[in-house]
Amino acid sequence: MPSEIPVRTSLAQRRFGLPPGSIVNLCDKEPSYTRVSLVNYADHIYEELQVDDILSAIENRNPKTVTWVNIEGFKEVSQIEKLGEMLNIDKLVLEDILDHETRPKFEEYEHYSFTVMKMLYTDKETGVIFHEQVSFILSGNLLISFQMEYGDVFDKVRERLRKASGRIRSRKADYLMYALMDVAVDNYFVVLDAYDEQVQNLEDEILDNPEHSVISDIRQLRKDNIILRKASNPLKEALNTMLKSETRSFDSSTKKYLRELQEHVIQANEAIEMSRELSTGLMEIYLSALNTKMGNVNKALTVIATIFLPLTFITGIYGMNFHILPGSDNPLGFWILMAFMMLLFIGMLVYFRFKKWF
Amino acid sequence: MPSEIPVRTSLAQRRFGLPPGSIVNLCDKEPSYTRVSLVNYADHIYEELQVDDILSAIENRNPKTVTWVNIEGFKEVSQIEKLGEMLNIDKLVLEDILDHETRPKFEEYEHYSFTVMKMLYTDKETGVIFHEQVSFILSGNLLISFQMEYGDVFDKVRERLRKASGRIRSRKADYLMYALMDVAVDNYFVVLDAYDEQVQNLEDEILDNPEHSVISDIRQLRKDNIILRKASNPLKEALNTMLKSETRSFDSSTKKYLRELQEHVIQANEAIEMSRELSTGLMEIYLSALNTKMGNVNKALTVIATIFLPLTFITGIYGMNFHILPGSDNPLGFWILMAFMMLLFIGMLVYFRFKKWF
Amino acid sequence: MPSEIPVRTSLAQRRFGLPPGSIVNLCDKEPSYTRVSLVNYADHIYEELQVDDILSAIENRNPKTVTWVNIEGFKEVSQIEKLGEMLNIDKLVLEDILDHETRPKFEEYEHYSFTVMKMLYTDKETGVIFHEQVSFILSGNLLISFQMEYGDVFDKVRERLRKASGRIRSRKADYLMYALMDVAVDNYFVVLDAYDEQVQNLEDEILDNPEHSVISDIRQLRKDNIILRKASNPLKEALNTMLKSETRSFDSSTKKYLRELQEHVIQANEAIEMSRELSTGLMEIYLSALNTKMGNVNKALTVIATIFLPLTFITGIYGMNFHILPGSDNPLGFWILMAFMMLLFIGMLVYFRFKKWF
Amino acid sequence: MPSEIPVRTSLAQRRFGLPPGSIVNLCDKEPSYTRVSLVNYADHIYEELQVDDILSAIENRNPKTVTWVNIEGFKEVSQIEKLGEMLNIDKLVLEDILDHETRPKFEEYEHYSFTVMKMLYTDKETGVIFHEQVSFILSGNLLISFQMEYGDVFDKVRERLRKASGRIRSRKADYLMYALMDVAVDNYFVVLDAYDEQVQNLEDEILDNPEHSVISDIRQLRKDNIILRKASNPLKEALNTMLKSETRSFDSSTKKYLRELQEHVIQANEAIEMSRELSTGLMEIYLSALNTKMGNVNKALTVIATIFLPLTFITGIYGMNFHILPGSDNPLGFWILMAFMMLLFIGMLVYFRFKKWF
Amino acid sequence: MPSEIPVRTSLAQRRFGLPPGSIVNLCDKEPSYTRVSLVNYADHIYEELQVDDILSAIENRNPKTVTWVNIEGFKEVSQIEKLGEMLNIDKLVLEDILDHETRPKFEEYEHYSFTVMKMLYTDKETGVIFHEQVSFILSGNLLISFQMEYGDVFDKVRERLRKASGRIRSRKADYLMYALMDVAVDNYFVVLDAYDEQVQNLEDEILDNPEHSVISDIRQLRKDNIILRKASNPLKEALNTMLKSETRSFDSSTKKYLRELQEHVIQANEAIEMSRELSTGLMEIYLSALNTKMGNVNKALTVIATIFLPLTFITGIYGMNFHILPGSDNPLGFWILMAFMMLLFIGMLVYFRFKKWF
Repeated sequence: MPSEIPVRTSLAQRRFGLPPGSIVNLCDKEPSYTRVSLVNYADHIYEELQVDDILSAIENRNPKTVTWVNIEGFKEVSQIEKLGEMLNIDKLVLEDILDHETRPKFEEYEHYSFTVMKMLYTDKETGVIFHEQVSFILSGNLLISFQMEYGDVFDKVRERLRKASGRIRSRKADYLMYALMDVAVDNYFVVLDAYDEQVQNLEDEILDNPEHSVISDIRQLRKDNIILRKASNPLKEALNTMLKSETRSFDSSTKKYLRELQEHVIQANEAIEMSRELSTGLMEIYLSALNTKMGNVNKALTVIATIFLPLTFITGIYGMNFHILPGSDNPLGFWILMAFMMLLFIGMLVYFRFKKWF
Repeated sequence: MPSEIPVRTSLAQRRFGLPPGSIVNLCDKEPSYTRVSLVNYADHIYEELQVDDILSAIENRNPKTVTWVNIEGFKEVSQIEKLGEMLNIDKLVLEDILDHETRPKFEEYEHYSFTVMKMLYTDKETGVIFHEQVSFILSGNLLISFQMEYGDVFDKVRERLRKASGRIRSRKADYLMYALMDVAVDNYFVVLDAYDEQVQNLEDEILDNPEHSVISDIRQLRKDNIILRKASNPLKEALNTMLKSETRSFDSSTKKYLRELQEHVIQANEAIEMSRELSTGLMEIYLSALNTKMGNVNKALTVIATIFLPLTFITGIYGMNFHILPGSDNPLGFWILMAFMMLLFIGMLVYFRFKKWF
Repeated sequence: MPSEIPVRTSLAQRRFGLPPGSIVNLCDKEPSYTRVSLVNYADHIYEELQVDDILSAIENRNPKTVTWVNIEGFKEVSQIEKLGEMLNIDKLVLEDILDHETRPKFEEYEHYSFTVMKMLYTDKETGVIFHEQVSFILSGNLLISFQMEYGDVFDKVRERLRKASGRIRSRKADYLMYALMDVAVDNYFVVLDAYDEQVQNLEDEILDNPEHSVISDIRQLRKDNIILRKASNPLKEALNTMLKSETRSFDSSTKKYLRELQEHVIQANEAIEMSRELSTGLMEIYLSALNTKMGNVNKALTVIATIFLPLTFITGIYGMNFHILPGSDNPLGFWILMAFMMLLFIGMLVYFRFKKWF
Repeated sequence: MPSEIPVRTSLAQRRFGLPPGSIVNLCDKEPSYTRVSLVNYADHIYEELQVDDILSAIENRNPKTVTWVNIEGFKEVSQIEKLGEMLNIDKLVLEDILDHETRPKFEEYEHYSFTVMKMLYTDKETGVIFHEQVSFILSGNLLISFQMEYGDVFDKVRERLRKASGRIRSRKADYLMYALMDVAVDNYFVVLDAYDEQVQNLEDEILDNPEHSVISDIRQLRKDNIILRKASNPLKEALNTMLKSETRSFDSSTKKYLRELQEHVIQANEAIEMSRELSTGLMEIYLSALNTKMGNVNKALTVIATIFLPLTFITGIYGMNFHILPGSDNPLGFWILMAFMMLLFIGMLVYFRFKKWF
Repeated sequence: MPSEIPVRTSLAQRRFGLPPGSIVNLCDKEPSYTRVSLVNYADHIYEELQVDDILSAIENRNPKTVTWVNIEGFKEVSQIEKLGEMLNIDKLVLEDILDHETRPKFEEYEHYSFTVMKMLYTDKETGVIFHEQVSFILSGNLLISFQMEYGDVFDKVRERLRKASGRIRSRKADYLMYALMDVAVDNYFVVLDAYDEQVQNLEDEILDNPEHSVISDIRQLRKDNIILRKASNPLKEALNTMLKSETRSFDSSTKKYLRELQEHVIQANEAIEMSRELSTGLMEIYLSALNTKMGNVNKALTVIATIFLPLTFITGIYGMNFHILPGSDNPLGFWILMAFMMLLFIGMLVYFRFKKWF
């Protein structure tokens, strides 16, 4: 089962000693592509295209529509750098976009705002939770979103944009950013559900049949919970900064939605905390199940010994080579003794049954 | 024993990807009814009716009386939506009303206020605690309460209204809302008592007879405590917001009661925390009871082995086929040895009795 | 050993559904009396009487002296109600006085102040800690104290009043209230000492002889600690409110004493926290003592088995029915073998002694 | 090993019921002396004397020099009381000086300031930590320090005063008080070092040879840590109050040193917290060492049983009294069987060796 | 494995009783050298030299360039003292520089600022983490850095200075200080990675083969984590003070970088907390692995006893010396019994296999 933690290792070593503001892809897996999609929309306009040259596409965008540029994978770091220069974006911001361990945060600059959050996924096969960084640059009616790898969570929003249903088409880029963040946070709950289900299943498994292997599973659940907390906890604070910002980045009408979003994040944080509590208790359950099992083994041993040691002792008595052994020449002696031992055997069985030892 | 947690699973998946403000019933069990009751009252007026058409009933209400509309079950979501439109209620508020996982909170809007809290119930048979969401829309002398399912807690208030006893009939809708919240919080203590009793009973059971099955019970108590905390903790904060609100939603005389209510909630929070502490200790008690039991089993084994291994060894000595075995031809040899072994047997019994091993 | 917790059960059920401000005795044990004592004093005046009719006694009090009315037991709830009406006391306050689970607090009203605190007692026989609610109504030079049951803690203050020693007789009713609270808080330390002694004794007992029964004792100590915390923690906050109050309830010279009192409460809170830490560690000690004991039992078993299994095997060898058994016809054979086995026996004893197994 | 905690018992009972401001020695050990030393110093003046009559010594002090009066042991409480009257010191302050459980604090009065802190000592033989209360009355260029018992920590400062080295002689009484507090806090680290060493030694001992007796030692370390925390934690707060005080008690140049002192206290608090963490882990280590040991005992038992039970069974087969026992009349039969059993024995030894069971 | 904690012992004893502001090297290992390197740089100037006489080198520095003096090892404490006098640095600051246990902090003085932080290293062989104190005096365009021992972390910055790449050469001394701190904090992540790897490796080792020796390793990891926290936690606060300082120490453009640095420190703190959580869980894993192992030993014992005790009993029956033993004279008797015992043997093996006991 792969662990999410060691990933940072190589990252730390690659970052170590770089001057601040270095525009280097610090993602540990070298992405093989940069995919850029661009969406232009207004109330009655909607166009969607895959672009190769981000710069010219952005430069030639329709200034009357909202433009959403989604960049997935950072193969061509130089292009990101040029984009930064064109839009006059701080180098430290670009560094944060490319560093996949940036804490969720919101920063406001003179002519744009910068937001970092995490997307969460559950690996379908192993159930391991991993996270992907998503960054947003919001500048007037232009929204640029950066995804480390391809993720399909945003498709839900794209769908709504295409259908022109709801209020999304009639609103500005700040609402679009909210909608994207909202769908990502909604997904936290899906991931959390899967997590809770794993906890529940593992609990059932431990109670049924405590195997040594569950320790790794419990351990993995703890690591997963750390991933969850790392994504969700700082986001609350970031949203707080957003809500307090007094600039033109957000319409007051959008802030209403952001407040709702923040409540969802608080709810997620609470739920994560509760799940953590339940997953922490699993080790205790395992230990107690283990103890119960060992107790049963010991009981079995004691039952066997308590039954057969006295019986063997009795046979030992009649196995002694005394010349005169009472009853040894009685033709029924053997059978009488056998009957006595049988009675003893049954008596002890009944006794242990009564004490519920087996 | 059914667990309360997994319920969220399907909810999260149903909510995931919906645009904000979607008026969809997210309750996991499809309710088969929407029941609406309407009460009009003033000092000398009291009328109570079941209505089918909420909208017209509200529109045609007596503007001089307090009107309380109680809606149970959300079969006809469209009606809720229309109600929202008629009273000009924000769509996000309607979404919160229908989502049964909304955190307890208080929000003030221009012409109405919105409150969410949880009702708690103990399942009579299993003792499992579950919660139901209750929301209030308070707008002038109109109070609309929304209950996910039918609950009989509000009957106590209805009774008081009918009897015209106490101050309730002479006061406004804000006092009515307080009275409903008060009766719900009073019920927290009833639920908490049942919970404490379960903890106490389980403790007694563990001390008497530690069975493996208690682990599930302990686990269930922890989950129940989480439910309790999720209902009670955020309510304190919500009441704080209420008390600080400076609008005309609440009479200053009602605020006195809200302060009292908040104190009860704080008291409930403390009591929940204490109960949690006690329920957390149960696992420890179980483990130690288990250990004690295993210790007794081991003692039994040791007693048996310590008694019979030496005795069997002695019989083994006289079972050896040496041609000359001292005393083997003495007619009393057998009886002397038997007496010696009996003495040994009794001596060891006395010794173990003295050491309190059985 | 009786537990203090379940008491609330019936209380919660009795309170549930009552309208706020209901003047009902919620104490679980129906008191059989209401005892009222009245003390009038000034610098050179001191009179003390038992009164039957509280109302007229208060109405006809000497307005130039400080009047202290102490009410114990609430048999005649109607009298309390009339008292409230006469002095114009809020119904919610009366409800709090009669509800024995009110959290310690201080509330200021227009013409009087209301204080709730807890008295703590240790049951002489069982060592169980229980608490009694004490409430104060302070209104000018009239102080009314309410005690659920008879308690002798206030006698110390009565003594000082009688003797006219110290500053107490020359000061106002606010100082009297402080003196009563001070003596109650001083008593916390006496109760806490008894608690610490119990912890220490239980610790010694566990180390000496870990019996299964100590679990109930440990459990009881935890419940006692909860009682302690519930009494002492909120009192700090209540005193804070007192100190911050800007009305004429307290002389500035009395505030100096209240500050000192608050420091004692903080000290009590810290000491309770420390005691809690020590009492929490008891379970660990018990478990380890249990483990040590089981380890000794296992050692005993192993010693016995290690000594007698090989010896029995040897006798088994010479018990085999081979026609030719080496040495079996040697007259000394038996004795040589016995000597060998004796040597083995002693050797193993020495070995285990050396390894400190017994 | 004596425990520090129960000391409070008698104290609480002696204090209980006393009127506030009672000037009574609450120290539990009746001191047999009051020793008073007086130091007068200025830049070029230094005199040091033992005085019997504090009052006249203080009254006749040189007003141009700094006067430091150090009072050790409180045999003559009446003298303290008179001192208080002469200097017009609040009775509550005198009560705090004589009560050896006062929390560390700083209080400012009109013409003097009052400081309480704790000195810590390690008992040389048992390693138990105990604390002694030190109080300071600072009033202009007069500093009075009160020590419960004789302690030699202040000698370091006396030495520096005598030598006229450093800045101490050229500064006021506030700096002297700082210097005394500084030397006491420096001593915390010495005590803490001894504590850490004890933790380390106990850890080594547990890992080497886990004896039941270590439980008392672990327990004592916890109690010691509580003593440490009780002394150091409130001091940080007290220094904060000092630093925020806006009166003439402290020169702004002295405040610089107080800030440095506060940092040392914070450092001490952190170190105490870390030591606590390490000492808490000791019980876990002990339990695991115990488990390991028990595991080895069980292994030994299993090895013995696994080797000798089958062998004894084999001898049992040939001990049966069948008339025809295969090989029993073969002259080599015995030796063949013996060789077979020897092979079995060696084989099992090798097997267990391979599995590292012994 | 050497422990980092006891180092403080001797330090505390050496410091105890020293007057404040004593310029004494409190480092526990007497350094054998003082190495001073000086770098002068501006946009187009770069010179780097080893100097012997710090004082004259600083005095004669080029006032138009940034001057960075790096002092490693404090053999000649007197030189540090003279340096302090020349630059008019507070004696308490010099004391802090030489005391290797100073908490990370930032202090601003009239004409210079003083910063303390920790460098972290992992011992290559033992994996033990140790820390080294680094202090900075920033005064206009002069930066003096003090290192307890030689560390190569700053080489990365020196390299960048030499290459004149990036913005570093064009900026002031405050940016240089930031760059040095940044490289040190980056190194925290490298150390933390090594730590996490150790935790992971130890976890794998425990799951594979739980040896008693892992306890020391777990213990060492805890101590390492304490070192990590002691270095990283206070730094966040120190950076906060830096960011809030309103003087000319830092350019507003440098503050942007400091904010970024602070975020890295917060990230480090979080990661340390997570690592702590995981390392705390190791003991639990060890205990459960131990229990599992013991359970297996007990199972083996029970299997052996359950198989051979009944078989031996059967042989005992036929070993009895009854004159008439059924079947004993049947030539096939022996073989029939042997076959029966073989069947029993196989049956029990199958049964235990089925129950997965071996």
